[in-house]
Amino acid sequence: MRTSIATVSLSGALTEKLTAASRAGFDGVEIFENDLLASPLTPEEIRARCADLGLGIELYQPMRDVEAVPADEFARNLRRARHKFELMRRLGADTVLVCSSVHPLAVDDDALAADQLSRLADLAQEFGIKVAYEALAWGRHVHTYTHAWSIVEAAGHPALGTCLDSFHILSRGTDPKAIEDIPGEKIFFLQLADAPLPAMDVLQWSRHHRCFPGQGGFDVAGLLRHVLRTGYDGPLSLEVFNDVLRQAEAGPTAVDARRSLILLEEAVGAATPPEPVVPTGVAFAELLTPDAEPVGAVLGALGFTRAGRHRSKPVDLWQHGEARILVNTAGAARRDGSRLAAIGLESPDPAAAARRAEALLAPVLPRRRAPGDAPLDAVAAPDGTELFFCATGHPGTPDWRGDFADLPASPDGAHVRRIDHIALTQPWHHFDQAALFHRGVLGLHAQESVDVADPYGLMRSRALTGADGAVRIALGVGAAPGDDTVHAQHIALATHDVVAAARAFREAGGRLLPIPANYYDDLAARYEPADDELETYRELGILYDRDAHGEFLHCYTLTVGRVFFELVQRDGYRGYGAPNAPVRLAAQHTAHGALTYLTADG
Amino acid sequence: MRTSIATVSLSGALTEKLTAASRAGFDGVEIFENDLLASPLTPEEIRARCADLGLGIELYQPMRDVEAVPADEFARNLRRARHKFELMRRLGADTVLVCSSVHPLAVDDDALAADQLSRLADLAQEFGIKVAYEALAWGRHVHTYTHAWSIVEAAGHPALGTCLDSFHILSRGTDPKAIEDIPGEKIFFLQLADAPLPAMDVLQWSRHHRCFPGQGGFDVAGLLRHVLRTGYDGPLSLEVFNDVLRQAEAGPTAVDARRSLILLEEAVGAATPPEPVVPTGVAFAELLTPDAEPVGAVLGALGFTRAGRHRSKPVDLWQHGEARILVNTAGAARRDGSRLAAIGLESPDPAAAARRAEALLAPVLPRRRAPGDAPLDAVAAPDGTELFFCATGHPGTPDWRGDFADLPASPDGAHVRRIDHIALTQPWHHFDQAALFHRGVLGLHAQESVDVADPYGLMRSRALTGADGAVRIALGVGAAPGDDTVHAQHIALATHDVVAAARAFREAGGRLLPIPANYYDDLAARYEPADDELETYRELGILYDRDAHGEFLHCYTLTVGRVFFELVQRDGYRGYGAPNAPVRLAAQHTAHGALTYLTADG
Repeated sequence: MRTSIATVSLSGALTEKLTAASRAGFDGVEIFENDLLASPLTPEEIRARCADLGLGIELYQPMRDVEAVPADEFARNLRRARHKFELMRRLGADTVLVCSSVHPLAVDDDALAADQLSRLADLAQEFGIKVAYEALAWGRHVHTYTHAWSIVEAAGHPALGTCLDSFHILSRGTDPKAIEDIPGEKIFFLQLADAPLPAMDVLQWSRHHRCFPGQGGFDVAGLLRHVLRTGYDGPLSLEVFNDVLRQAEAGPTAVDARRSLILLEEAVGAATPPEPVVPTGVAFAELLTPDAEPVGAVLGALGFTRAGRHRSKPVDLWQHGEARILVNTAGAARRDGSRLAAIGLESPDPAAAARRAEALLAPVLPRRRAPGDAPLDAVAAPDGTELFFCATGHPGTPDWRGDFADLPASPDGAHVRRIDHIALTQPWHHFDQAALFHRGVLGLHAQESVDVADPYGLMRSRALTGADGAVRIALGVGAAPGDDTVHAQHIALATHDVVAAARAFREAGGRLLPIPANYYDDLAARYEPADDELETYRELGILYDRDAHGEFLHCYTLTVGRVFFELVQRDGYRGYGAPNAPVRLAAQHTAHGALTYLTADG
Repeated sequence: MRTSIATVSLSGALTEKLTAASRAGFDGVEIFENDLLASPLTPEEIRARCADLGLGIELYQPMRDVEAVPADEFARNLRRARHKFELMRRLGADTVLVCSSVHPLAVDDDALAADQLSRLADLAQEFGIKVAYEALAWGRHVHTYTHAWSIVEAAGHPALGTCLDSFHILSRGTDPKAIEDIPGEKIFFLQLADAPLPAMDVLQWSRHHRCFPGQGGFDVAGLLRHVLRTGYDGPLSLEVFNDVLRQAEAGPTAVDARRSLILLEEAVGAATPPEPVVPTGVAFAELLTPDAEPVGAVLGALGFTRAGRHRSKPVDLWQHGEARILVNTAGAARRDGSRLAAIGLESPDPAAAARRAEALLAPVLPRRRAPGDAPLDAVAAPDGTELFFCATGHPGTPDWRGDFADLPASPDGAHVRRIDHIALTQPWHHFDQAALFHRGVLGLHAQESVDVADPYGLMRSRALTGADGAVRIALGVGAAPGDDTVHAQHIALATHDVVAAARAFREAGGRLLPIPANYYDDLAARYEPADDELETYRELGILYDRDAHGEFLHCYTLTVGRVFFELVQRDGYRGYGAPNAPVRLAAQHTAHGALTYLTADG
């Protein structure tokens, strides 16, 4: 029989995956849409590469939530389908996978589903394409293969068949025998996967995935309140079985564990550490670099000017709007490259903020780093980043800027307003603890953690924000231990006009991260932006996202050492462009080399 | 409130854990039994160490399946409890945790449970110890805290109270409010843990844990048979979403994927690769070493004699009984140390065995490695180990021993009979694939994979055996990527008398791995061996296990390079001593240094 493998089953860039599949003797591949979007090859080039390698393109799956939806939604789906069928023609793929809808507006109406799938099949037929309809195990209304087949049968369309997937059938414990009632020519595709059984029972959950209070989803404080009402006066004891903690260094784990108990005691009123003082803004970010030139060149191109020089240390203050970046050349090792070493946080009460951090076991740093420096409250975060609590420009409190001698002002580019967010890469074993630290110590709000597909593994990211979004910190973690030294940190700069800011950066000699053309073809299918807008985005490598609150445009500089910069324009949007992260990560691998996008500075 | 942490929540050796807990400011610890068993410190020394560090020992949990069991079982439990209460007195711990029974013979009889717990509490009281009874979420009959409390209440014993654990309560979605109906003084202990929610739904299972056919628990072949009966003639396509494969090198993954499809096609009769030729024994194991002396010294002390020298290469043949080990000094790099490079497998038909391996995509190695060598069929396993198919001493087929010039025979120690099993450390990303290879290519039977707690993370191990146990290969994998270079491989040698073999080894200057005294105290509590036997085991570092088929005695040499040896005496026993592996691993860390037990040779 012909054999095929989905590109999502293999690691790396699309061309690596194709090469590996061909070498192993596969006859064809399913191309996973994200692999195409992230590839610098055009569809025609991908087609030619596959042909060279003796691989057919057996399937493409660019669509979700197609059927059993309201008419206007379906009309949008058809427009999108036309885009994708054109793409498939360029790719030479003749079977499209449509999974059963999980759309919240999808209705439980088989006749409507059959009708809409027929209309999709009509369109597909124009392109010589066959539609394979598959029941997802978690489909909203259609989640068994027999149900999917009954809809296909009712539609009775020659270009519409069904796709069977062993995972979706066997994971629900469905009897596969009724497959034999489907005519073979109506089974357009067969996807095979196995899975460990049982995936997770409470015993496995208990023995491998417990975590410290506040790091999971249980209402541990609620339970503790009930216990305390009984008069219990024994110890609070943490019994946590966790595969990751078994590998993590014991010292930091124990500190995180104790911190979680202090926060728990605070939650039930059994302890009263100093209250959190939520930061109100970012005063500065500090980069440690062995060579100020490459970082300075990027900052200069971004419109920053060197506004001050530290009176006693090799530290320069760069400024643009309210965004301030310190470039420190003391003590950085050449092989580490440039990296984010410290963050200044504006605080309504720096001393109180430091007192809370200390009560929550954060190491307090010396208030004066050198004689003559303004005293500044500072603590170390679990990843070693220094957090300075500042009151910039507040009369009566020491101003850190007093340590810097002003340099002659140069004209301000006026594109950057302030630091929008800072992304910090965390040690792999301590990701959950880091979120609890920033939440508990700084009083930030933690959003849900999201998975982000890097070509070489699944990364995770979790954002923490102040109430008004004035402080945003995004914590990221690589796919495996050791990746913390591979993935870069970044500073995102807020702008009112990302197009103007990106153009100005480029005209000043800055290099933007190139984004593959396939991304913009998909953008056109998804959002139908005006042609000239799309051209501008494509030219500058600007990415687009939107949520219920507004739109988001962003682009990236190339990486310097372990740091890169992002320009963001958020018009009400509250996220961080996570749907674009796989494309950005793949583009960074492409721009900076196949195995890592870290660069030597410059 | 007093704070405490279970030692199982922290990584490392017991003393590292205690130090970390103390530094983080905890008031006490729960000592997890395995941490004590694996520690070289006596209970008194552990007590003193905790006191020095300002830590109380709040809880010890040495017992399982105590209550609601048949009378003879309970009598054994009481004997065991006395041992453990004596230990707790030495330790200075005054609260013992008893989890609700998961024993298959446990009966659903609250009155019996209350009575037996009361009798346990009577005994505990003699030692000044309190018994805290806790409902496990997966307890056989008692799995809610309200049920556990009703049994404690019915017992009405002053030394019997309940232990509450947030995981066991909240993971079942039980309302914690009824906790308030328990008098606080009867809550003897409180264990806290959080956990991510939802632990695993079908969506998570699908997106993160799929695997290739034959690597999981689904009957994918059964499903495929149904599909083929429909007349389906499209491709077999693998769509596998898997977090580990996302990080794994694409080339080997693709080969493993194709191999799984060939085996699947074979299972449904759609392909007919050459049939498996199951190996019937181990002809030899080959060690690659930069320096033959340290390995030779250990082999000599084990009673091996140097029986032959290769005619053209720097390879010596060492022999003892039917156990043969080749020591090869060609090409090993100093920094790799000694390692297992090849295995010779006795085969009824070496050429046919190689043909099957080749059909299943194993790289075939040149039949003659040098002019003049006997032609030998060989392939490479996924981890790079060379597998030679041999027919030792079979007239009419080339004998690999012909390449060796005999050396003068020396007297045979007669302790070792043959190689019992070989343990190979696998690359982290390809563990599941390795098992499928040995199963599919060699026709071995794969046992379930087991978790093994190393002090620095959870390892996994999976055994593959021929029908009669004549060939046994144990595949192991470290806790994290990169650990494959940390953990050692080993060769287990079968003996009829492990005590005599161990003594002879030691008398010949060999060094056995010392096993902590705490292990033997626990052995006494569990199995009540005769005092002199126990003393012998303790003196020689012999470990004990048993299963339904018989008893198992085994001990270990110190590690040379990346290899160590095990002496095993299995009287019907079918396992590999997995329950002893945590103690062995911890002992290796102790013997060879805190961070790794790899040694420079010698």
